[in-house]
Amino acid sequence: MKFGGTSVGDPERIARVARHVMAARKQGFKVCVTVSAMAGETNRLVALTEELGGGDVSRDPDYDAVVASGEQVTAGLLALHLRSKGCPARSFQGWQMGLETDDSHGAAKIKRLPQDRLMDAMENGEVAVVAGFQGFTAQGRISTLGRGGSDTTAVALAAALGAARCDIYTDVDGVYTTDPRIVATARRKPVLAYEEMLEMASVGAKVLQTRSVGLAMTYGVPVRVLSSLQEPEETGEGTLITGEDEIMEHEVVTAVVPSVGEAKISLLGVPDKPGYSALIFRLLSEAGVNIDMIVQSPARQGSEANMSFTLSEKDLSFAMEKLTLAKDELGYDELVANQNVAKVSVIGIGMKTHTGVAAKMFETLADKAINIENISTSEIKISVLIAADYTELAVRALHEAFGLSSQDA
Amino acid sequence: MKFGGTSVGDPERIARVARHVMAARKQGFKVCVTVSAMAGETNRLVALTEELGGGDVSRDPDYDAVVASGEQVTAGLLALHLRSKGCPARSFQGWQMGLETDDSHGAAKIKRLPQDRLMDAMENGEVAVVAGFQGFTAQGRISTLGRGGSDTTAVALAAALGAARCDIYTDVDGVYTTDPRIVATARRKPVLAYEEMLEMASVGAKVLQTRSVGLAMTYGVPVRVLSSLQEPEETGEGTLITGEDEIMEHEVVTAVVPSVGEAKISLLGVPDKPGYSALIFRLLSEAGVNIDMIVQSPARQGSEANMSFTLSEKDLSFAMEKLTLAKDELGYDELVANQNVAKVSVIGIGMKTHTGVAAKMFETLADKAINIENISTSEIKISVLIAADYTELAVRALHEAFGLSSQDA
Repeated sequence: MKFGGTSVGDPERIARVARHVMAARKQGFKVCVTVSAMAGETNRLVALTEELGGGDVSRDPDYDAVVASGEQVTAGLLALHLRSKGCPARSFQGWQMGLETDDSHGAAKIKRLPQDRLMDAMENGEVAVVAGFQGFTAQGRISTLGRGGSDTTAVALAAALGAARCDIYTDVDGVYTTDPRIVATARRKPVLAYEEMLEMASVGAKVLQTRSVGLAMTYGVPVRVLSSLQEPEETGEGTLITGEDEIMEHEVVTAVVPSVGEAKISLLGVPDKPGYSALIFRLLSEAGVNIDMIVQSPARQGSEANMSFTLSEKDLSFAMEKLTLAKDELGYDELVANQNVAKVSVIGIGMKTHTGVAAKMFETLADKAINIENISTSEIKISVLIAADYTELAVRALHEAFGLSSQDA
Repeated sequence: MKFGGTSVGDPERIARVARHVMAARKQGFKVCVTVSAMAGETNRLVALTEELGGGDVSRDPDYDAVVASGEQVTAGLLALHLRSKGCPARSFQGWQMGLETDDSHGAAKIKRLPQDRLMDAMENGEVAVVAGFQGFTAQGRISTLGRGGSDTTAVALAAALGAARCDIYTDVDGVYTTDPRIVATARRKPVLAYEEMLEMASVGAKVLQTRSVGLAMTYGVPVRVLSSLQEPEETGEGTLITGEDEIMEHEVVTAVVPSVGEAKISLLGVPDKPGYSALIFRLLSEAGVNIDMIVQSPARQGSEANMSFTLSEKDLSFAMEKLTLAKDELGYDELVANQNVAKVSVIGIGMKTHTGVAAKMFETLADKAINIENISTSEIKISVLIAADYTELAVRALHEAFGLSSQDA
């Protein structure tokens, strides 16, 4: 079981987490529970490191020593509370359970996760309460796994312990066909394939991090997403994320995912010669800017081409600066930034075997007179870039067109 | 060097601590620095453990895991800041330096403190920044040394490392002949003997804990008390606490120490038979109540005696309850509580060789018509219990009578 920052945000919520843990024990499970820092705590600690470290020090071992303390506190508090309610429990820090990572501080990778100490505690009748997000290096320093690291800890533990399931408690009661704030008839998915969840996470669904879903897929750990905001007896079934072959029937399209915070950069009049686009993207990659949805418009022979791509809005001004400084080298005529864009994706593992999804998607958008600026696809996903103002309209239309709305709404 | 909670209470103060550390390095010292949690942090964490643990859980290993995080944060932040100022540094948690304790959680005793890892860091040109107050047990759990534990960590480290000195930075600039808020002419003592500091701490001087002074005395660690509230270049010499034989001239009386928060219980009409007082004090000791200044009034033969003793005001109602419940067993006639009392002590290692201190003390108080209720003495201390209203008057009169006031005030 894993409980995120909102789920342990105050003492009352930690007490409710304990009730969830005790309910699972009542069902006959041995429980290992991973917790995040109390909501807001990691941000407070990061701000202190920036103030005293003179900027972003998130690659520093001492940064990790500071921020890992948030999870340490929650784990201790939950163990204390479980015991005060008569449920044997003890906390484990990363170094105490032996979770060894590489030395990429601030974004460390797990190298070794022995299960003996946790298993001993559980065999001994105790709930093993694990501080998520943290480990230690071969040099004996505290390390952290980066944002969303507690999900990674939980999935890795489930794999190491051979757990029946990894239940990830969040502030939503499962994964939906789309954002219920946009489409009232959005449905909770009872089950999803790892690949679908991966694509959803990669285009901006906030429920789970790509990294933990990828880890679950690699080790075949069934992951369930549930809400911790209800009492155990009121909590629904959530969404089970599992292997493709565990799912009997695949809908062609599973979800429509809007993604905000996108921006688009266009370079007009790029020389249509080999190597020029590589030049542009190497420049941006070296500057640490992730780009997406690249489109190069066909150029008339011997003439110039136009190129556009999307990137995260927060990287926009930095990328524009880099490209402007390299204008002579890159040889383009004009540079245009556009923040008024949004990405909308349809995702479904059934696309592997069904054709016509793209056509249906484009027709649906055309019907609403929504212009498509860029397109990118994967085996189980189609994403389009549109004007941001049309986001909700596009999501509602696609959700309806692919038959995702609940019948009884 | 050791910096307490007030000294590291906010980022600006942590930055000033770094300047003190760098100044010491400039003087040619290799520096190991111990820090407490930021002021208020330990109280916040303790309150969380009480809320979730359902009361006082300060003997619980998970309590220790929670509260030790405060020092972890400060140590990491100080190391980050030192490095951002170009001074190599790294943080050490209790388990990282190998500070092993017994398993008396919440009040653990140090069993082993290897110096190799800290020494390696220092030989390597780094400042070793140690999280005070914490260690780990043979079972691999985090332990804490109890309140004031960071002073103990610092002194123990100084002993283990064979340090030239242990500088303890606080919010006062040294140890005074008495509380300067009561007597404007109080003087900072440039030097004090361990025994004197021990007695001062035991009667309530807040500068240092008895435990760390005792440890310093055992290992002969010279301890200096200094203020961290000034910049390094403005900081005075503080007070050096060292061995009796290191001090050339001893004043007969070194300090006058008022102690508030005292209360007095009197049992009237106690049977004057062997074993009755043992009965009373065993009852209180089993209830965890510390008592002090016991006076049994001489009884007429075969008759009844009166007995009184002092205790901490916070234990008063609990002790009264215990004694009331045991009235039949103890056989006293009447139980009287008095909170309006204060203890005033004169302390000086010169008392070992000089007589007449008690006489002078009693005469001075009699001159001011201050009634002495109880008296207790040690080789280098005389304490009297008086009505609390006379505390300041008594302190000023004694400070003057023993010639402690500065000449130029």
